[in-house]
Amino acid sequence: MAPVGAGLWRTLRAHQVYGANTDVGKTIVSTVLCNAVQRQKQRAAFLKPVSTGALDEADDRHLERYGAGALTKCLYQFDEPVSPHIAAKSKTIPRDDDLLASIHQTLSGWARSDIDFALVETAGGVHSPGPNGNSQADLYRPLRLPIVLVADSRLGGISSSISAYESLVMRGYDVQSVLLFRDDYYQNHDYLGQFFSKKSIPLVHLPAPPGKPVQMDADAQRRDEEAMHTYYRQASQESEILRLLEEMSLTNKTRIERLEEMTEKAKDLIWYPFTQHQGMQAKDITVIDSAHDDYFQTFNSGSSANPDSELRPTFDASASWWTQGLGHGNPDLSLSAAYAAGRYGHVMFAGAVHEPALSLASDLLETLDNPRFRKVFYTDNGSTGMEVAIKMGLRAACDRYGWDASQEKINILGLRGSYHGDTIGVMDCSEPSTYNKKVEWYRGRGHWFDFPLVKMVNGKWKVEVPAELKEDLGADSEFSSLGSLFDLNNRLSSETSGRYKAYIHRTIKDLVETHGMKFGALILEPVILGAGGMLFCDPLFQRCLTDVVREHPELFSPNAPAAKESPSWSGLPVIFDEVFTGLYRLGRPTSASFLGVHPDVGVNAKLLTGGLIPLCTTTASKEIFDAFSSPEKSDALLHGHSYTAHAMGCTVAVDSLKTMSKLDKDGSWDGYRADWKEVASSSTQESTPEVWSVWSNGLLQDLSSAESVESVFAIGTVLSISLRDEQGGGYTSNVAKGLQQKLAVGGDQFNVHSRVLGNILYLMSSVTSKPDSLREMERLLRSSLL
Amino acid sequence: MAPVGAGLWRTLRAHQVYGANTDVGKTIVSTVLCNAVQRQKQRAAFLKPVSTGALDEADDRHLERYGAGALTKCLYQFDEPVSPHIAAKSKTIPRDDDLLASIHQTLSGWARSDIDFALVETAGGVHSPGPNGNSQADLYRPLRLPIVLVADSRLGGISSSISAYESLVMRGYDVQSVLLFRDDYYQNHDYLGQFFSKKSIPLVHLPAPPGKPVQMDADAQRRDEEAMHTYYRQASQESEILRLLEEMSLTNKTRIERLEEMTEKAKDLIWYPFTQHQGMQAKDITVIDSAHDDYFQTFNSGSSANPDSELRPTFDASASWWTQGLGHGNPDLSLSAAYAAGRYGHVMFAGAVHEPALSLASDLLETLDNPRFRKVFYTDNGSTGMEVAIKMGLRAACDRYGWDASQEKINILGLRGSYHGDTIGVMDCSEPSTYNKKVEWYRGRGHWFDFPLVKMVNGKWKVEVPAELKEDLGADSEFSSLGSLFDLNNRLSSETSGRYKAYIHRTIKDLVETHGMKFGALILEPVILGAGGMLFCDPLFQRCLTDVVREHPELFSPNAPAAKESPSWSGLPVIFDEVFTGLYRLGRPTSASFLGVHPDVGVNAKLLTGGLIPLCTTTASKEIFDAFSSPEKSDALLHGHSYTAHAMGCTVAVDSLKTMSKLDKDGSWDGYRADWKEVASSSTQESTPEVWSVWSNGLLQDLSSAESVESVFAIGTVLSISLRDEQGGGYTSNVAKGLQQKLAVGGDQFNVHSRVLGNILYLMSSVTSKPDSLREMERLLRSSLL
Repeated sequence: MAPVGAGLWRTLRAHQVYGANTDVGKTIVSTVLCNAVQRQKQRAAFLKPVSTGALDEADDRHLERYGAGALTKCLYQFDEPVSPHIAAKSKTIPRDDDLLASIHQTLSGWARSDIDFALVETAGGVHSPGPNGNSQADLYRPLRLPIVLVADSRLGGISSSISAYESLVMRGYDVQSVLLFRDDYYQNHDYLGQFFSKKSIPLVHLPAPPGKPVQMDADAQRRDEEAMHTYYRQASQESEILRLLEEMSLTNKTRIERLEEMTEKAKDLIWYPFTQHQGMQAKDITVIDSAHDDYFQTFNSGSSANPDSELRPTFDASASWWTQGLGHGNPDLSLSAAYAAGRYGHVMFAGAVHEPALSLASDLLETLDNPRFRKVFYTDNGSTGMEVAIKMGLRAACDRYGWDASQEKINILGLRGSYHGDTIGVMDCSEPSTYNKKVEWYRGRGHWFDFPLVKMVNGKWKVEVPAELKEDLGADSEFSSLGSLFDLNNRLSSETSGRYKAYIHRTIKDLVETHGMKFGALILEPVILGAGGMLFCDPLFQRCLTDVVREHPELFSPNAPAAKESPSWSGLPVIFDEVFTGLYRLGRPTSASFLGVHPDVGVNAKLLTGGLIPLCTTTASKEIFDAFSSPEKSDALLHGHSYTAHAMGCTVAVDSLKTMSKLDKDGSWDGYRADWKEVASSSTQESTPEVWSVWSNGLLQDLSSAESVESVFAIGTVLSISLRDEQGGGYTSNVAKGLQQKLAVGGDQFNVHSRVLGNILYLMSSVTSKPDSLREMERLLRSSLL
Repeated sequence: MAPVGAGLWRTLRAHQVYGANTDVGKTIVSTVLCNAVQRQKQRAAFLKPVSTGALDEADDRHLERYGAGALTKCLYQFDEPVSPHIAAKSKTIPRDDDLLASIHQTLSGWARSDIDFALVETAGGVHSPGPNGNSQADLYRPLRLPIVLVADSRLGGISSSISAYESLVMRGYDVQSVLLFRDDYYQNHDYLGQFFSKKSIPLVHLPAPPGKPVQMDADAQRRDEEAMHTYYRQASQESEILRLLEEMSLTNKTRIERLEEMTEKAKDLIWYPFTQHQGMQAKDITVIDSAHDDYFQTFNSGSSANPDSELRPTFDASASWWTQGLGHGNPDLSLSAAYAAGRYGHVMFAGAVHEPALSLASDLLETLDNPRFRKVFYTDNGSTGMEVAIKMGLRAACDRYGWDASQEKINILGLRGSYHGDTIGVMDCSEPSTYNKKVEWYRGRGHWFDFPLVKMVNGKWKVEVPAELKEDLGADSEFSSLGSLFDLNNRLSSETSGRYKAYIHRTIKDLVETHGMKFGALILEPVILGAGGMLFCDPLFQRCLTDVVREHPELFSPNAPAAKESPSWSGLPVIFDEVFTGLYRLGRPTSASFLGVHPDVGVNAKLLTGGLIPLCTTTASKEIFDAFSSPEKSDALLHGHSYTAHAMGCTVAVDSLKTMSKLDKDGSWDGYRADWKEVASSSTQESTPEVWSVWSNGLLQDLSSAESVESVFAIGTVLSISLRDEQGGGYTSNVAKGLQQKLAVGGDQFNVHSRVLGNILYLMSSVTSKPDSLREMERLLRSSLL
C-alpha cells in the first residue's frame, strides 16, 4: 500500500475535527462552520470517513439537512451505535491505509473542484478507536491535517479538553482552533479561552444548540428542525465565527507562504554541515514539513497549484544520517521522551544517578553481550564518544608501557578510509583525506592499513584484494554466499588467514622497529567503514588484525606482558566504533559479533535512541577503567558534557533497545532472514553469525550485473551501490548524482531521499520499514539501473 | 513557602487517585480499595484535599459511611457544585503550596501512625483546576505520588482515559494501576486492558455499582445503603482487587529497594564524568528520584524509616552543570519536546530545512543582537560548538594571511584559566592545567594572558591585579559598585585602559616577532571564566584585548589589511564562548554586551534549551562564512553530527528563548534589579549595561567580610564564594568541601546541591527561581559562614 501524503492544498482549506470527548457537538460545530462558509458564497464540504450509529448520529445526514448546501460525504457507514472498532467486527473493515488513501483522494478531488473549505470529522474522542482498533489520533496522523478541536463545555470538560489537546500535540498535530458551546454555569469557555490564548490558539464559543424534544412526533420534529435552522443561521453569523474563518483562511495561506520562503531563508541563515555553499541554490534545499514512520513530508515547491496536495511523502533512505530506527513521529518514543522531561528535565550526572541512566547502562551491557564490558560512560554523539574512547585507550597503553605521551607521539592503528567524527581529536584517528586535510589543526596520528573489500560483482560475492597488496595477501576470491564469507571459524584456518596475519605482523614490526612508531590503540569500524565510503571490509582481515595485535603484545613494547586468556587487554586496547554499524543497523545487536571479537572499548550512538535524540555511550572493560584509578583526581578521565546522561535520551534509549530487541526475537524479520537463508544454505555456516538484509537477494544479483554498476552489497538495513566512474570514483566523484536525482523524483507512490558518497549511492531503512515500501524502492532501482 | 518533598514512605503506600473524567467513579473505586485493605486487617485512609459539591459529592462522607472503618479526612470543603477554581472565588483559598504542605504533613502523620494504605483523591478529571485555577496534574506534581487512574467505562471513555493517562505521563507521573467499571456493551475495559498491558500497567475492572434510586425517600435510601454495602462487600473481595493490592504493596517495596541499591549499582556500572573513582563510595552518589522546578527529589538513604518521606527536596544549585533555566519538569517544555518528537522525530539536516531549525536560527540572531552575525551552525554541545568555532576562526585567519596550517603551528590567543570543553581540539585552546595535562594527545596551542580579577573583598568591589603584572598594569583599584566597574565607556579613557592596551600590544608583538608565533583567533569567555575556576575577569581587560587585536592587525601579519570600521573582522577573528555566560545566565541576553563587543563567532549551549536537552549553536559573521566558500567541496566546513539541528532541541530552544526574553522584559526580575540599583545609583552608569543578580547585595557585603571568606562575587544567577585556603587554593584544594557538606545537609526546608572548584564554592539558580528559595539559601550561607 502506498504511503499517503500529508494534506495541504492551496485552493482548499482542509481541517480535521476532533472532539474532546464524544457528544461534545462536533457535528453541530461543523455544521455552523459549513453554514458560515456557504453564506459567504464559498463552498464547504464535509467528510465523515467512518460513521457509526450512536457516536455521532448520522452526521453526514445532519450536514446534508442543515449545511446550507455544503457537500457531504461518508466513506464507511456502520449502523450500530458503538465504537467503530466494535462495529467493524461485523462488516468488511477498510484497512487504515485504504481509509487514509480514500480521504486524501476525496480531499484532492475537492481541491481540484470548486470546494474552498473542508472538514473531516472524526468519531468520538481523539483516542476513540478507528475501524481497526487503532486510536484515531494515531490512525489519521499521516495526513496531519490542521485540527479544529471541539472542546467540552460540560462539567469536567476543562480537563478532557486539555488532555485531548495534549494527546494531539504530542503526536505533532497543529491544533489551529478550539470551539465549544457557551455554558454560563461551568464557564469552561472562560478558563479554556485563557488557556488556549497562552498557546496563541483562538478559541470561539458558540451559543448552545436548542434542546432536543423529549418526544419526537411529527410536530415536534418540525419545530426542532425550525429551531435548528434558526440556530445555524444565527450562530453562523456570529462575528467570532466569521473572524475565525478569516483566520483559518489566513493560516492556510501564510503556512504555504512560509513553506515557500523557507528555502531562501535557510540559505540566508543556516550554515549547513558538510556543505559547500558556493553555488548552492535555495531550490536544492528540501523543506521537510513533518515526518512520519519512514517518510518525510516534503514541500513540493512549484509555481502552480498542485491538486494532489503540496506535500509529498519522501522515503528517508539515508535513515536521517543513519540514525533512524523506529520511525519518525513514533508516539511511544514521544511519550517516553515527554515522561522523562516531565519527571526529571535534565539533572546533573556527576556524583548522581537516576533511573534512566542506570537502566540504560545495564540494558546496554546486556545487549552488547561482551564479557569484557563493565563500565558505561555517557556523552552526546559519536564524535565525543570516540574522543572518550581514544582517551581511554591511550591512557591504558601509556600506563602499561610507561610512555610519557607529553614527550612522544603515540599513534593509533586503524584502517584506511576510517571515520570517527568531526572533533579534531577523532579526526586525527583517520588518515589524511578530503574530510580532514584542510582542517588547520588536523594532524593524523596513526598507521592505516589498506584492506580487502567485500562486494558483489556480477551476482557473485567476492573478496577483492587491492592490487598493491596482492603479493602479500593473495588473489581475489569468490564466495557462494555472504554467510560463507562470514564463516570465520572456517576461514581462520585457511591460507588466506595465514597471509593476512603474516602481513599485518610484518607491517607493525616494521613500523615500530624501523620507523620507531609507538601505538596506543587499535581502532576499527567493524564490517563497514561508513562515512569513509561505505567500505565493506573482509571480516577475516579485521579479525586477523585484532588477533595479531592481541597475540603479539611484544610488537608494541619489549616490556609488554605476554598475551593470556583473560579479560584483560593484550597488545593494544581494541576500540570498536559501532556508532554506525551497531545496534541492529546490520541486523545484529553488535557488529563485533560478526567478527567474533570482544573489543575492550565500544562506542554506540545513532540508533541508540531509535533515531530520536542525541546520545552516545562509550563502554569499557574493567582493566581500561582501572588505568584511570589513582589517589590523584587529575588522573581521572576528566571528560564530561553538560547534558551527560540526560534523562530524556536515556529513557528513550531504554525503550528503543527494548523494542529493537523484541523485533529481533519475535520473528518480525523472519521474511528477510528466509530470503537470505536460501542462498546461504549450501555453505557450512552452522556456527557462524546469521547474515541477512531487508534488501532482497534477488535485487543484489540483478543490480550487480547491471552495466552501470561496479558492485553492490547489502547487509542488515544497508544497501550500497557502487557505480562505474571512468574518472576513478572517490569522494569527489559525481557519478551517483544521476541515480540520486532519479530516486528523488520517485515513482507513483513516493520520492526517495538518498545520500551519495562519491560514486556510491546507499539506501538505508529503519528496522521497522514496511516490506511494501522496500519493494517499491527496489522497483525504482531496477527501473533506473537495469 | 518551603518546597514540598515528593511522597514515598516505607510504612505507608500512598497513591493519588485521578479520574479520566468527572463522574467516572473515583470515590467508589477508592471505597472499594479501602474496603479491601480494611478487610485484610490493614488500615486504610482516605484524603480529599479539596472537596466541592457536585464534582464528587461529599466523597469523604461516602468513605466514612462505606469505607469499612477507613480513616477519612478533607482539608478544604467548598459547598457549591462547581469546579474548585470557581468555588474558591467565594472563600478563603488555600495557596497551592499550603495545600501541598498540608497533604504531605497529613500523609507523613499517617505514616508515623498505623496507617498502611492511603488514597489522595483529586476532583474531576486530571486537568480540572485546583483552587487557584492551576490544573491539578500540575498542582500536585511536586508530590509525585504514584497514580491510581480511574478510567471511564462510558461511551467515549476509551479516548478520555488514554488522553488522561498521557497528560499524567508527560508530567512525569507513574501511573501504577488503572481501574474502571465493567460495561459489557461498550467493553472499554477490554480495549483499555490490552492498551495498558502493553505499558505493563495492571488494569482491573469492577462490577458497576448499583443504580441510584430516582426518588430518594427514607425507604429508598435504606435500600440504597444496603445495596451499596453489599456492593462494597462483594467488590472488595474480588480476586483481581486483592491481587492488585498485593501488587501495589510490592511496587512500593521494590521501588524503595531499587532506590536503595541504585548507588551500589551505579558505582558498579557507571563511569562518571570528571570523577576519580578511587576511594569513591556508593554513599557519595546522590540518587535523584525525580526533579521539579528548582528541586531534585533525592532519596534519603538511611537505615531507619523516615516518617517524613524517603524523598527530600534538594535545591539544584549547580543548575545541573549550569544548564538549568526554566525549571525541571517544566510542562510547557515537555509538551514542546513531545510535539517536535511527534511531528518530526529527528530529520536529517544536510540539504534540508525544517521549521524549528529555521525559527531558532532567526530567533537566536535576534536575541544575540550582534550585527556581525549572519549564519547559524548547529551542533550538540559546547565542546563540539567550540570545535566548529575554532575551525571557523583558524580558516578565516589562514585564508587571509596565506598561512599553510599543515606546515606551521597556528595558535590562539586567550586568557589563562580558560576552558572550552573536553574534546581534544578545544582542550588545545587552554593552557596546560589539571584538566588537560594528562590527556595523551593534548598539545596546548596558544598564548594565554594573565589578567586582573574582579572580586568583592570586605564589602568593596575591587579589581585585583596579579602581583607579577602590577608593574605593567598598575595597582589594585576599588569601585563603588559593580555597575561603575562595568562603565567601560568611562573606564576606556582611563590611565588603566592605556596600561592594559600597551601591555597587551607589547606582549603580542613580542610573541610574534621574538618567538615567531602565529595566531589564528582570539578566544574569550566574556566576563566569567567558568570551569577554569569561576574567574571574574576585569571587563576592561577583555575589552582592551579585543580592541588591541582588532585595531592592530599588523601585529599578526605584515600583509594584514588595515583595521576599518566594517563588519569584517580585523586582526584576528574574535570568538566568544558564551556556553556558560550567555542567554541570561548573567542577567542579560549575551555576556558580550557587558563588554560592548560584537564577536565574529559566538557559541551558545546549556541555557539554549532552558536546561532540558543538548543543543549548541555556533553563530558567525558573513566574512567568516565566506572563508569557506570555494568551488571545491573539500573547502567547505566539513563538520556535522548525526543529530545536527534535531527538531526536539530546536523546538524547545525556540520556546526557551521566548520565555526567557519575556521574563527579561515583563518585570519578573525587577525586584533583583531594584536591590542592585540602589547601590549602583551613585555611579555614572547611564549608558552602561545594567548589572544585577538574583543574589542580594546585602549577602555579598556580609559574606565578603567573613573571616573564612577570601572574596565573593555575584552577577545574574551566579554567586561565587572564594574561601581562604592556607595551601593556596586551586583546583586541588579541598577547603570548600566543608561548606558544601553543610549546604548538602541543608536547613529545615531543603538540602542544597552545590559544586566546588577547588577553594571556590558557587551557587547558581535558574532564571525562574523563587525569591523565597534564594533567601533561604542565603540564610543557610550566613549561618554557615558568619
